[in-house]
Amino acid sequence: MSINSNLAQEIQEQPQALNRLLDTQAEAIQHLAEAIQHRQITHIVIAARGSSDNAARYALYLFGTINQFLVTLAAPSLYSLYKRPPRLGNVLVLGISQSGESPDLVEVLAEARQQGALTAAMTNISESPLAQQADHVINLSAGVERSIAATKTYTAELLALAMLSSQLAANESMLTTLRLVPQWVEQTFELNPNIYQTIKPYCQMRRCIVIGRGYNYSTAFELALKLKELTYTLVEPYSSADFLHGPSALIEPGFPIVVIAVSGPILNEMQQDLMPLLIERGAEIITLGNDPQTLSQAQTTLPLPNDIPEWLSPICAIVPGQLFALYIATMRGYDVDQPRGLKKVTKTQ
Amino acid sequence: MSINSNLAQEIQEQPQALNRLLDTQAEAIQHLAEAIQHRQITHIVIAARGSSDNAARYALYLFGTINQFLVTLAAPSLYSLYKRPPRLGNVLVLGISQSGESPDLVEVLAEARQQGALTAAMTNISESPLAQQADHVINLSAGVERSIAATKTYTAELLALAMLSSQLAANESMLTTLRLVPQWVEQTFELNPNIYQTIKPYCQMRRCIVIGRGYNYSTAFELALKLKELTYTLVEPYSSADFLHGPSALIEPGFPIVVIAVSGPILNEMQQDLMPLLIERGAEIITLGNDPQTLSQAQTTLPLPNDIPEWLSPICAIVPGQLFALYIATMRGYDVDQPRGLKKVTKTQ
Repeated sequence: MSINSNLAQEIQEQPQALNRLLDTQAEAIQHLAEAIQHRQITHIVIAARGSSDNAARYALYLFGTINQFLVTLAAPSLYSLYKRPPRLGNVLVLGISQSGESPDLVEVLAEARQQGALTAAMTNISESPLAQQADHVINLSAGVERSIAATKTYTAELLALAMLSSQLAANESMLTTLRLVPQWVEQTFELNPNIYQTIKPYCQMRRCIVIGRGYNYSTAFELALKLKELTYTLVEPYSSADFLHGPSALIEPGFPIVVIAVSGPILNEMQQDLMPLLIERGAEIITLGNDPQTLSQAQTTLPLPNDIPEWLSPICAIVPGQLFALYIATMRGYDVDQPRGLKKVTKTQ
Repeated sequence: MSINSNLAQEIQEQPQALNRLLDTQAEAIQHLAEAIQHRQITHIVIAARGSSDNAARYALYLFGTINQFLVTLAAPSLYSLYKRPPRLGNVLVLGISQSGESPDLVEVLAEARQQGALTAAMTNISESPLAQQADHVINLSAGVERSIAATKTYTAELLALAMLSSQLAANESMLTTLRLVPQWVEQTFELNPNIYQTIKPYCQMRRCIVIGRGYNYSTAFELALKLKELTYTLVEPYSSADFLHGPSALIEPGFPIVVIAVSGPILNEMQQDLMPLLIERGAEIITLGNDPQTLSQAQTTLPLPNDIPEWLSPICAIVPGQLFALYIATMRGYDVDQPRGLKKVTKTQ
């Protein structure tokens, strides 16, 4: 199945883009890690929107479990609309944005700088307004992203965050493991050769829920966003814990639910509380992951490499999700490069 | 229209419950404010789930704009599943929970206490496990909540947070204004005497989007949660900024969208960017708020008192939303006190 679109091409390009990031940005990331350590910072405030905000959700678990850092997601309107920015203290304020152009994010970094906080930007446009407000700039090095839906810049953001976390941990084994990520992404493509056929039953779906927790809470949000942007399906992301606190009432027989089940501490709840409930209620389960039990209970499976560690798994886990959204949109005859009503750069206040 | 359910009764009881909170908890809240100031804390970490997590979203804007405090929403799984809690530093860790029983939230407070952070609980059950881990306990004083969907405990949480913020600001005018909240809630009922008729066109809706920003970002989430829990409709909450960054692609002619438009700094974006887009795309607009322009552009209106200040508006704004969800569920013949698959106390790990 070959689809000629920028989106399909950019999804396929991800292993090369990730290799480019590993090859070119290690030094810039090391300098940033040194500045963080020099200032004894253990708290990161992240400003981001859209797909980059989903990368920030990954950062929450990454810097939490690996570095025991506190991560706060900034509310940009406090800076831009209310003009009442919080007192930040000794923090790193990190802006994450493909274009680096959204004025509200630029304002967060400008205010942080004025307050004397350490600032950094992760962006694909290293001369962007966001980058200009940052003490440290990490260039995502993904190459020009032409399709409106972010794919290769999203996985580059995740990997850049993982590189920073490993550098801060000064953990050689983690730093070595990072180099395997592009191969794991390649393997993910190989493990899912027929997604176009696999997901055909969902071509007409109008509603869907995606569940992840911990590290892959980010994947649940990003997969939901790709499906919404590209296929105009109403899709809601949940952590399995929040889902059990109310929204589980939604489930009726045949309701399509994507469950992201990657080996790790979150599996117990998925296996013991979530899956029995979904099965009892007759949900149509699509498992994305590498947990054999959860995969075996699904109507449809999107497998991931067995040996990928949980902390890096979101970089692979979104890939079958990107293909899922691309193919549903293609089957429905939508323009995947220019979804209706969207622009590549959204400038919010 | 009289509906005999615990839910309907608890929605109606809100003015009394809020008065009880104002009458009985001012002192406890003052003590907490003193402890925060004594320790020179300007950063609050909040642990909450479900409706209480929506109250935490309100806290983000409240303590941000009024006190210039930084607010971080805790990721409970870092404490409970990953066993890698962040180093918290000099913060208040605040648990918000109707029942005070969810083990993951209790673990966040226990860890915070062990690290020497100041801890507080806002709960309707003052002898709950969560309260037992807290240095300060604010009793929501809402009376027993029998229906599974939280209503009066949610508005009590918002008001308790507003009381704490005003006390920290030591602002007499704000402390006086708080006493008007129960009357504003009464007025909101009076302004919406025929919601049952008003919302009939949406009885069969299967999908819906709710948009708020800033203070009423919380209302968007809580209204979406009520609709999901009670009516099994797939509803997604968005900030207007995030909505413009992608999900706006979803909108087709006739798509029902609730826009929460309360006078304040967020109105400009709603009026200039959001509403023209929704009108152009033929969305079915339901405006909940007190902005005359946004109300005049809607197919359906759920008005709020004109004179309620933005910082207290979420306490009123959810009320028509609660009635909206109650009546849709009633029209569909659902049991509003016992939504399928839900328990009053959800114990997540």
